[in-house]
Amino acid sequence: MNDTVNNDRYERGWRKLQEIDGEAGTRVVESLAKIAPDFARYIVEFPFGDICSRPGLDLKSREIAVVAALTALGNATPQLKVHVHGALNVGCSAQEVVEVIMQMAVYAGFPAALNGLFAAESVLRERGLLPAT
Amino acid sequence: MNDTVNNDRYERGWRKLQEIDGEAGTRVVESLAKIAPDFARYIVEFPFGDICSRPGLDLKSREIAVVAALTALGNATPQLKVHVHGALNVGCSAQEVVEVIMQMAVYAGFPAALNGLFAAESVLRERGLLPAT
Amino acid sequence: MNDTVNNDRYERGWRKLQEIDGEAGTRVVESLAKIAPDFARYIVEFPFGDICSRPGLDLKSREIAVVAALTALGNATPQLKVHVHGALNVGCSAQEVVEVIMQMAVYAGFPAALNGLFAAESVLRERGLLPAT
Amino acid sequence: MNDTVNNDRYERGWRKLQEIDGEAGTRVVESLAKIAPDFARYIVEFPFGDICSRPGLDLKSREIAVVAALTALGNATPQLKVHVHGALNVGCSAQEVVEVIMQMAVYAGFPAALNGLFAAESVLRERGLLPAT
Amino acid sequence: MNDTVNNDRYERGWRKLQEIDGEAGTRVVESLAKIAPDFARYIVEFPFGDICSRPGLDLKSREIAVVAALTALGNATPQLKVHVHGALNVGCSAQEVVEVIMQMAVYAGFPAALNGLFAAESVLRERGLLPAT
Amino acid sequence: MNDTVNNDRYERGWRKLQEIDGEAGTRVVESLAKIAPDFARYIVEFPFGDICSRPGLDLKSREIAVVAALTALGNATPQLKVHVHGALNVGCSAQEVVEVIMQMAVYAGFPAALNGLFAAESVLRERGLLPAT
Repeated sequence: MNDTVNNDRYERGWRKLQEIDGEAGTRVVESLAKIAPDFARYIVEFPFGDICSRPGLDLKSREIAVVAALTALGNATPQLKVHVHGALNVGCSAQEVVEVIMQMAVYAGFPAALNGLFAAESVLRERGLLPAT
Repeated sequence: MNDTVNNDRYERGWRKLQEIDGEAGTRVVESLAKIAPDFARYIVEFPFGDICSRPGLDLKSREIAVVAALTALGNATPQLKVHVHGALNVGCSAQEVVEVIMQMAVYAGFPAALNGLFAAESVLRERGLLPAT
Repeated sequence: MNDTVNNDRYERGWRKLQEIDGEAGTRVVESLAKIAPDFARYIVEFPFGDICSRPGLDLKSREIAVVAALTALGNATPQLKVHVHGALNVGCSAQEVVEVIMQMAVYAGFPAALNGLFAAESVLRERGLLPAT
Repeated sequence: MNDTVNNDRYERGWRKLQEIDGEAGTRVVESLAKIAPDFARYIVEFPFGDICSRPGLDLKSREIAVVAALTALGNATPQLKVHVHGALNVGCSAQEVVEVIMQMAVYAGFPAALNGLFAAESVLRERGLLPAT
Repeated sequence: MNDTVNNDRYERGWRKLQEIDGEAGTRVVESLAKIAPDFARYIVEFPFGDICSRPGLDLKSREIAVVAALTALGNATPQLKVHVHGALNVGCSAQEVVEVIMQMAVYAGFPAALNGLFAAESVLRERGLLPAT
Repeated sequence: MNDTVNNDRYERGWRKLQEIDGEAGTRVVESLAKIAPDFARYIVEFPFGDICSRPGLDLKSREIAVVAALTALGNATPQLKVHVHGALNVGCSAQEVVEVIMQMAVYAGFPAALNGLFAAESVLRERGLLPAT
């Protein structure tokens, strides 16, 4: 299934994955090596090579959209943490990330926002943007 | 329950609701007059008077977050349409709205994105931003 | 599959279904006659014959729980309407139903509560508990 | 963005889309022509060209999985109908489709199963597999 | 943003939070001190000061509604535990809480009910209402 | 509530539970002994005695449907693991399970599929179907 003709999408996606998620992105791809290596390739190709590489919306807005959606859905905490990193990597301030998550209380309820804030807090601490407890 | 001391929040919220949602916001508030007038007041006060009036995140980014979340949740089409209007009202281009919704295919699946696109399409047509069918 | 030994559960369930949902319950069961008659039987037996017939929680509290859950899930409007009828049939006031739904804004977001209120409004009008528009 | 090198994926996907969804698939693609033509292309390429074209799981099992998931999620009725057609097109019997949907009562609740059954019923009638009402 | 005119809502909310959630409520508010202190204030003001302080529905019914909704949504276990405490604090028996959660099997599926029961079990043990394992 | 007339359903369900879930099924039933023994009985009777014992859909297809639905819902990881075991127990290959879960990226988003794959991986390792890390 590994069409060599798709190399462009993979390479473009890999660069975009590095730009947004850095090491965390590499770890997600590596974590799939045993169970579903093709899925690792799809993640690079479709979300990053096709979607996030599109013109028409800046990367900062794209990451704001993802942090909002994952907070609202509330069932993907590991991915939310990766994208809090991503949002900070492409230019969001810690405050902007916190504002997006707080706002989800209105659209998905206070528990979803609360759990999103705790996920963000662990990322902000890891990056030294909040004092350690 | 109608604390007169809260007038500031209500007035600030009403102005913000007008700025973001315009007539569509007024219609939501009016539609609640019979069934739950206090809920109409809460919508003005909390989402608009408290949350959307906060500094720290620009209104355009706030509406991008809402369009993303409502597309991903997939169970609030009328509200998604109101916020597609809202996003356009505060400075998003039609293309940016479409990009946000398309991106949700990655995080909430293709059916959610597809239904979001059809909701956006009806708003864009209504505003003359797409040719009528 | 139609174990005659299960008649007790079916009869107990049917009486409970009538008590809670009245005609609306009969219509749900009849609506399944062509597509899945066994599923109609299961609805009578398990939710009504087993669960709703249990001691330990009064019917009014059971219907409050259902109205809350269906409002929060947000993807089952027809069933929410049936259970707004059910809540009123077993002793909830219109105000209590509206309070339960409004409260869901906190736990599942304002759009879920808003759509729940509109569903309740149509039932309340149908029963003459709100003036016709 | 329309990499000519991706023609293989698109063509493979288009053939698979025709095999599974027939005319209904064509209509979905055409319906996106105005609002998001690139998204139409992605639907052909990724879900059909990449995923559904993979060996390792037969098409009938793939459609059973989709009907189950869309019934459980409960917020994508138009797509559920398309995939009830799809399941029947690739060899599921009407009874098998109904069994899959009924089973979802266990995993996603009776309302989700009920709404799934009504969606399936409209498709089965359209195909003459149930008597018209 | 901290309108001094809102003191009434905050104080009324704080008393209600103590009445319902006791220490667990205080811990939630404190846990937000670093990441989002304003969100802690909103939790006191809106859910507790505005909503839970409303007349028209008794506190026991309110907590039954919350336990039902959080069990059904299935993505907020920490908050479900807080509200199992809350339900017990305002007069629900352990049996009533268990009945509400079991009933969610009908509306949100057996897995949601099962996970809700395990969350409740840990609270009931903590309060000495079940024998330690 | 323990109708002796229902013994047939219980015994049929218990045999089916053993056939599908083996020891993991027994553990789920035992885990409910303290908190909700009647719920343990319902799980045996309705999902296994009524639904999974029905003719019209083979067990392998039933487990494919469950793995798909639980991956898509994304809020029931323990149950997903039980049913990955179940799918393997009734004849699915490891590859087929992985294909079903990967396919959910299309219908419920990449995070849901990713978390499903990690749940499956832990089951496959436990059964020696993947090398230990």
